[in-house]
Amino acid sequence: MRIILVGFGVVGQSFLKLLVFRHNEFASKYGLRPRIVAIVDRGGAAVNGRGLDVDRILKIKKEMGSVSKDPNDGSPYLSANEVIEKIEAEILIEATPTNIKDGEPGLTHIKKGMKTGKHIITTNKGPLALALPALTDLADHNGVHLRFSGTVGGGTPILDLGRKCLIGDRILSIKGILNGTTNYILTEMSEKGIEFESALRMAQELGYAEKDPSLDIDGFDTACKLVIMANWIMGKKVTLKDVKIAGIRHITLRDLMNYAKKDNTIKLIGSIDEGLEVKPRGISKRDPLCVPGGLNAVTFVSEFAGEETIIGRGAGGMETASAIFRDLIDIKTNLSAKFRI
Amino acid sequence: MRIILVGFGVVGQSFLKLLVFRHNEFASKYGLRPRIVAIVDRGGAAVNGRGLDVDRILKIKKEMGSVSKDPNDGSPYLSANEVIEKIEAEILIEATPTNIKDGEPGLTHIKKGMKTGKHIITTNKGPLALALPALTDLADHNGVHLRFSGTVGGGTPILDLGRKCLIGDRILSIKGILNGTTNYILTEMSEKGIEFESALRMAQELGYAEKDPSLDIDGFDTACKLVIMANWIMGKKVTLKDVKIAGIRHITLRDLMNYAKKDNTIKLIGSIDEGLEVKPRGISKRDPLCVPGGLNAVTFVSEFAGEETIIGRGAGGMETASAIFRDLIDIKTNLSAKFRI
Repeated sequence: MRIILVGFGVVGQSFLKLLVFRHNEFASKYGLRPRIVAIVDRGGAAVNGRGLDVDRILKIKKEMGSVSKDPNDGSPYLSANEVIEKIEAEILIEATPTNIKDGEPGLTHIKKGMKTGKHIITTNKGPLALALPALTDLADHNGVHLRFSGTVGGGTPILDLGRKCLIGDRILSIKGILNGTTNYILTEMSEKGIEFESALRMAQELGYAEKDPSLDIDGFDTACKLVIMANWIMGKKVTLKDVKIAGIRHITLRDLMNYAKKDNTIKLIGSIDEGLEVKPRGISKRDPLCVPGGLNAVTFVSEFAGEETIIGRGAGGMETASAIFRDLIDIKTNLSAKFRI
Repeated sequence: MRIILVGFGVVGQSFLKLLVFRHNEFASKYGLRPRIVAIVDRGGAAVNGRGLDVDRILKIKKEMGSVSKDPNDGSPYLSANEVIEKIEAEILIEATPTNIKDGEPGLTHIKKGMKTGKHIITTNKGPLALALPALTDLADHNGVHLRFSGTVGGGTPILDLGRKCLIGDRILSIKGILNGTTNYILTEMSEKGIEFESALRMAQELGYAEKDPSLDIDGFDTACKLVIMANWIMGKKVTLKDVKIAGIRHITLRDLMNYAKKDNTIKLIGSIDEGLEVKPRGISKRDPLCVPGGLNAVTFVSEFAGEETIIGRGAGGMETASAIFRDLIDIKTNLSAKFRI
């Protein structure tokens, strides 16, 4: 199984570490012998059709900043799109940063990957939030799989719970806390009695929030995840423009105090019902959704099995890398079933 | 797909209602055309090779107490074992009550079902807790599937989350609240400030606890579920005798009050780690496991994806019936893959 990895930040590097660490188990237990034939980062690419030396590449990335510095396999002037078009591989892992304006460069990478017959695994929410219905069609048209477990919940299998474990049931609605940064901020405000601006600054100092925190606190990250769940779990053909979005900038300590009097609190909730909506809502502290700190929590309301809630850390390099690995197994399993026909 | 249903209490009847209600969807969406060829209850059996009239059977059960009273298909003198041996079917659904002393009559039903080539779906914890490793071997030996989603968590897909959604990861430990009755009792004690005996009486009056509540409050029900999870999710070959078990009879209101001072509380926790153990433990009220009332909650600690908690109602006729239906789909899917080879 030949893999091209585009985007080599924390998640991409964690995935490679996982490969090294679990190489024998992948082969013996899952019949997976992944060979990384190309990696692309901001500085260029490293390419080797017989498989890159993963240990060496990790070391070069760490010490020299770009895989293109590899003395044997580095190509500083090779772009992601050239690699995707020219290098033969079965799988493209797209792990560049999320951009919700136009989905680039991820969107082009994914489309080019599909058109050249590669199965796609992505951790990039932007292209999915903007174009998931079209990308699903394009995948079908090209006979490839598109998987993205790591985009919702990091390593917590939220998408799989909804799609695989509740099979046979009908999911009527979904609601959840899908963004750890805003949950951390609201929890700190409540528990430490501080205002929004101070809690945001703390989150930034700890590295939970970006310098430009808008993607998180204005609700866009939650909205992207709603779009992905609505398409994958509920079969709705929606994109980001179909989501009503409000963030948490205007929430004051006083608002939280008022809710606390009735043993309630305020959380940024994304919901899929008749429509898709992100907004701060009051919820009971007894509600399983009411999780503290940076946790994520999602409740599925199903017609027969009742309400199920899944809770987990919604981010993390190794966690998200483990989701990529689950996607690899899933694609492998589907392909094996197909070849058996 | 011909089905024999042995045990026709709340769960069995809910399953039949689900069949009636969703008949068209089963066929169109999942290619399932289940035909109930026999039902056995305490009063005898109803048998019809071309398929029982499910609506009529439900009515007769309700009005006359036993399916054997059916004027066309009823057989008051036919036993479950005779039906399992003599009636041709692909699936045996075993839904008689749990007995943890010797697993009977369920254990014999399941073994006879396997020996006559039937796939087994059961909601009966007794035979599994006492003999799951042997039953798994027997299923393999006879080339049949054994499924039991409804035995842990009712409709909440706890077993599937552990086995299907965390595939590729390594589950290091599991802990959880697996019994709604004890959780209800402990929650009532804490919130209403009452002693164990009063809370137990309330649970009995509301029908949450049996007249003989030992199975729940002495921890045996939780222990059975641990055994099932340890075998199915973690591949441990254990039975009920491998579990260290303590219940909640000795927990006083004062114990709970003492824990509450530090924002903690006491829950009956089942855990799988080095060994299997059921005992009351103090946990933080911030822990996702700390759910109120009759809810169940299970935390999986996995090596790479982190900690995931799933929460849901752990019982209910329709919920458990929906788990049987998931098992039917799972068996159908496995068989289709096999026939395709």
